[in-house]
Amino acid sequence: MTDNSQQFASDNYSGICPEAWAAMTEANQGHARAYGDDEWTARAADHFRALFETDCEVFFAFNGTAANSLALAALCQSYHSVICSETAHVETDECGAPEFFSNGSKLLVAPSPDGKLSADAVRLIANKRQDIHFPKPRVVTLTQATEVGSVYRPEEIRAISATCRELGLHLHMDGARFSNACAFLGCSPAELTWKAGVDVLCFGGTKNGMAVGEAILFFNRDLAEDFDYRCKQAGQLASKMRFLSAPWVGLLQDGAWLRHAEHANACARHLAECVADVPGVRLMFPVEANGVFLQMPEPALEALRDRGWRFYTFIGSGGARFMCSWDSQMERVDELARDIRDVVGGL
Amino acid sequence: MTDNSQQFASDNYSGICPEAWAAMTEANQGHARAYGDDEWTARAADHFRALFETDCEVFFAFNGTAANSLALAALCQSYHSVICSETAHVETDECGAPEFFSNGSKLLVAPSPDGKLSADAVRLIANKRQDIHFPKPRVVTLTQATEVGSVYRPEEIRAISATCRELGLHLHMDGARFSNACAFLGCSPAELTWKAGVDVLCFGGTKNGMAVGEAILFFNRDLAEDFDYRCKQAGQLASKMRFLSAPWVGLLQDGAWLRHAEHANACARHLAECVADVPGVRLMFPVEANGVFLQMPEPALEALRDRGWRFYTFIGSGGARFMCSWDSQMERVDELARDIRDVVGGL
Amino acid sequence: MTDNSQQFASDNYSGICPEAWAAMTEANQGHARAYGDDEWTARAADHFRALFETDCEVFFAFNGTAANSLALAALCQSYHSVICSETAHVETDECGAPEFFSNGSKLLVAPSPDGKLSADAVRLIANKRQDIHFPKPRVVTLTQATEVGSVYRPEEIRAISATCRELGLHLHMDGARFSNACAFLGCSPAELTWKAGVDVLCFGGTKNGMAVGEAILFFNRDLAEDFDYRCKQAGQLASKMRFLSAPWVGLLQDGAWLRHAEHANACARHLAECVADVPGVRLMFPVEANGVFLQMPEPALEALRDRGWRFYTFIGSGGARFMCSWDSQMERVDELARDIRDVVGGL
Amino acid sequence: MTDNSQQFASDNYSGICPEAWAAMTEANQGHARAYGDDEWTARAADHFRALFETDCEVFFAFNGTAANSLALAALCQSYHSVICSETAHVETDECGAPEFFSNGSKLLVAPSPDGKLSADAVRLIANKRQDIHFPKPRVVTLTQATEVGSVYRPEEIRAISATCRELGLHLHMDGARFSNACAFLGCSPAELTWKAGVDVLCFGGTKNGMAVGEAILFFNRDLAEDFDYRCKQAGQLASKMRFLSAPWVGLLQDGAWLRHAEHANACARHLAECVADVPGVRLMFPVEANGVFLQMPEPALEALRDRGWRFYTFIGSGGARFMCSWDSQMERVDELARDIRDVVGGL
Repeated sequence: MTDNSQQFASDNYSGICPEAWAAMTEANQGHARAYGDDEWTARAADHFRALFETDCEVFFAFNGTAANSLALAALCQSYHSVICSETAHVETDECGAPEFFSNGSKLLVAPSPDGKLSADAVRLIANKRQDIHFPKPRVVTLTQATEVGSVYRPEEIRAISATCRELGLHLHMDGARFSNACAFLGCSPAELTWKAGVDVLCFGGTKNGMAVGEAILFFNRDLAEDFDYRCKQAGQLASKMRFLSAPWVGLLQDGAWLRHAEHANACARHLAECVADVPGVRLMFPVEANGVFLQMPEPALEALRDRGWRFYTFIGSGGARFMCSWDSQMERVDELARDIRDVVGGL
Repeated sequence: MTDNSQQFASDNYSGICPEAWAAMTEANQGHARAYGDDEWTARAADHFRALFETDCEVFFAFNGTAANSLALAALCQSYHSVICSETAHVETDECGAPEFFSNGSKLLVAPSPDGKLSADAVRLIANKRQDIHFPKPRVVTLTQATEVGSVYRPEEIRAISATCRELGLHLHMDGARFSNACAFLGCSPAELTWKAGVDVLCFGGTKNGMAVGEAILFFNRDLAEDFDYRCKQAGQLASKMRFLSAPWVGLLQDGAWLRHAEHANACARHLAECVADVPGVRLMFPVEANGVFLQMPEPALEALRDRGWRFYTFIGSGGARFMCSWDSQMERVDELARDIRDVVGGL
Repeated sequence: MTDNSQQFASDNYSGICPEAWAAMTEANQGHARAYGDDEWTARAADHFRALFETDCEVFFAFNGTAANSLALAALCQSYHSVICSETAHVETDECGAPEFFSNGSKLLVAPSPDGKLSADAVRLIANKRQDIHFPKPRVVTLTQATEVGSVYRPEEIRAISATCRELGLHLHMDGARFSNACAFLGCSPAELTWKAGVDVLCFGGTKNGMAVGEAILFFNRDLAEDFDYRCKQAGQLASKMRFLSAPWVGLLQDGAWLRHAEHANACARHLAECVADVPGVRLMFPVEANGVFLQMPEPALEALRDRGWRFYTFIGSGGARFMCSWDSQMERVDELARDIRDVVGGL
Repeated sequence: MTDNSQQFASDNYSGICPEAWAAMTEANQGHARAYGDDEWTARAADHFRALFETDCEVFFAFNGTAANSLALAALCQSYHSVICSETAHVETDECGAPEFFSNGSKLLVAPSPDGKLSADAVRLIANKRQDIHFPKPRVVTLTQATEVGSVYRPEEIRAISATCRELGLHLHMDGARFSNACAFLGCSPAELTWKAGVDVLCFGGTKNGMAVGEAILFFNRDLAEDFDYRCKQAGQLASKMRFLSAPWVGLLQDGAWLRHAEHANACARHLAECVADVPGVRLMFPVEANGVFLQMPEPALEALRDRGWRFYTFIGSGGARFMCSWDSQMERVDELARDIRDVVGGL
């Protein structure tokens, strides 16, 4: 039922990490109050506040699509717009969820060759239309790390947030792979978020070893008004909440969240290094997080598939994405690298 | 962290049952395709089709609020209305989720002394307004078992569905405690659903031993068109779906779903029997599923709370709800019964 | 194509009054800037500010359903609720428009024998549920005059607004027949709105002699933020706005709005007086605005219909509504009164 | 209050044409049933059926934004997408109304150098994404005439509709300037709509001489199910409907709709011809309908503005749009042409 050849297809193909599992096991004792009124949920929220060194508001949702959409809906009205990168997950892979949750907010996409927004791009889009016949820009959303594996530096985030403040825009961060960004930069979570002007962070747990569940952190607490009602109404309040929050305790209490991300990043870097000198294979983006994007001839991709490897190729002609995760095995990385060298060499 | 005195507060205070846990453990091996494209999800769907003896369409959502709301939204448009009992969970405890998911459908509530709708009540409400200035009735939703612990008989459902067909209404069933209804009636799931004219069932897993997750079964397959997109857009498609579907395999493959419900029902019946002769204590509704609703003097409720028991009293002045679950312990039921007798006698 | 027997069926069966028509004629000269950027719209807004003695924000929408729904949507989020009378137009005759525009806000209806909310009723409903499983009360809406022809006194509005402030609720007024209320009370528009604590008023033009168009006045200007975008997105921004605003200039510039309302009210009072002594005919509500609600035997209603009179009977068994409008003719009122006396006497 | 220099700024700067006005005058007699249950509305609908030579379903809405959005919402669900040209009004100038009315449907824009979609472009976009992580294409919308003044030929529409049928897409036409297209092509309305495979047409009245109001024609009658409820809920049902429908009778009963469009088109052609030989002035798009798009040096535009002319320049650097309307005066066209020649010559 499991398949090692799928190990690099997606980081959400991975299972539950031991730390999350242990916490779930412990949480599965007797009865506990429902809907987040339990001790595990309180503990998880406290861990987040400690980790981020601030008294933020913490909420939990089932998945990243919901977390992002709920947060964006809290930051704008239906006649507002959200500025994002053209490769942003909210634009390309959430089936219109942001539009649905917000009842119609429009996403305005910026060209972003490296997956990143810039302060200039934000300003350009925000200023393009200033009349009531077009949705009014109200939010900027960044993905950290981006969908192509790049990572915003603290100064980049600060520049964007300065522009946001100037233009009256809120700043949201999609942190499906926030852990990987922290691991890459060696920055504290605080430095990459509220200290840099981020209003709300959706911190992804699923890709980092949980079964289900994302955390939504409001550093700007005013924006969290009645957010618990919003979650409930949108079908995102778990009755047995402890099973969403306990795994966070497992991940946060002794740093597993960061170790797992470091491991995944290291695997990705290793893969990139192993194929760096293979002629005909080109790294499409710098490897900063846990993804490796390789351009190679289409027949090579075909040959890799024939050898059982699974990967996505949505990035453009000849591009393949290999994702590492908390449980990627270095020997499998080596094996993949060898196969890449092999199939390309054999063309 | 757990608290046995909360054992009768709510069936969603309970944890994960062994069968669900075992399946999750087994599913947590290696990598698996995401978003429901895995073998566990296929197996779970097949188990549902076998159990219901029909080739229904099967979907999974994170919780009951979402499952109900998604299903209702699939059955009507924003200018339509949904007929339900005044005690229906969709009306009283989902924070307007059906209205949100459907973009504005109105719930039309029928008085329902015993928690149940009747064919006559449906007809009365459906015929009350026939003009475009009021939302057009389009769906009837039943809760099986109801929020006050009563259970629809097959002939009651058939009578309602006949009325629905006559009036052009779809029939939805909120089965958060569908297992308990099956256990009480000794009927097959098919008899209580599609054979009786139900179009869509939301089959609850959480209250019956799962951590998270409900199943949505479309017996009328036409109504399921593009429902996978609907789930995705609404933030209800789990990336690591196997952890929502595997527990269903655990519950369904050898009948645990029914055994757990039978146990919970038996505990409820036992509690009711134990206090039947206590003067001053009145059974508010017949005990058919896993809930016992007792009317007793307010000081008695206070005294029970002082002894550490937890329960809800939303049913009206002097009414207390005691819910049994898959893991209720008969000796605790006895203890609770003794305490009730005790505090009432001591007034 | 017209039918005098329909003269009392509804005040929106009436046509365009001479003052509105004259202004439209005048406005229909040459070209003018679109979307409200014209001089007529500026003048109309200024007339409102003068009439209400305050610098309110003024917007125009096509009809009352939209005006009310847009205003309510501006005052709450989808997970909030709106407290209204059980006979409120927003509840009974707008086909779920408030729910649609707000993306799911729930209307909580208060019993209201005379069509009015009271401060106590507001408090009772607002305090009934305080948990996240039910939409959070956020707005109170009053209809002035009410759907059964009663009128809120300034002190009643002040009492309600005091309760609103205490409970954190906004106060909206549906003024489809606001003119008739002013005419009845002899109060200034300011006294009945912002001086009494009303945040937003939807001032009806259609029932008072316009072809189309309502005004939305925000006395609490903070609540009007980006409301122009809201109108535009919801399809309520007229391109040739001058034809919505000029009629307002016609109505407001020399007091026609009040004269028309006084006339309609007088007709209604006259009708009530004429039939006051008819045995078997009972006035269901005091006649304060332009509607007369009469209870009489069903055969009498049938006989009236046979004589060609048109009226609505939605108020309950044996109840008929007769609405007077800006153009009602007193001799037709006399005729109707005679026919009522006649048919009842002839039973 | 009026300003002849604004005569070419927009066709919705124009007033009410004599035929519409006369019908409104006639309709403004006595009382009439509300909400479209009057004789004018029946007559208008019959005129449409006669004009289009088919028994289509006819509805009326207040403006084009609402008409388009209601129609699109009827053709798709929130998780579906709508394919349109990058210059389509629904994308660029309706403030996210289609997304709002549909509760989140995404617009997928196709590059369209001449303002038109092609069958190939539709196919390309429709086939780009076929997975549930992106909204499923369900509707194609054409603007006839387009926002840049081009007109779809019948065979172009037929080719697109054939592709739509093949791919399971509905076909909607935004006919804000449908009259101008008919006038240009000399085709019957039927040839350009249902005979070419169009499911729904929004036929614009405002730009062609009405004060307010658009008609929505469903040639595919199945798609019109409960559309009257949709209009009502969305605040688009006029109570005094006769004032929206009577002008249509005025326009349709003796062909004024077409004469007005022919006149506007002729003015546009004349303007284009007059400046065809002016060096430095370039026609950006062929003049097929009532708009003339001229590229000229920025200082020339500035000089034109100094002479009092008003026009929009949203089409790109140096591009100016001059719109002719039912009441454009040929001598003013000449005057404008002379001024253009003048200011360009004077640079």
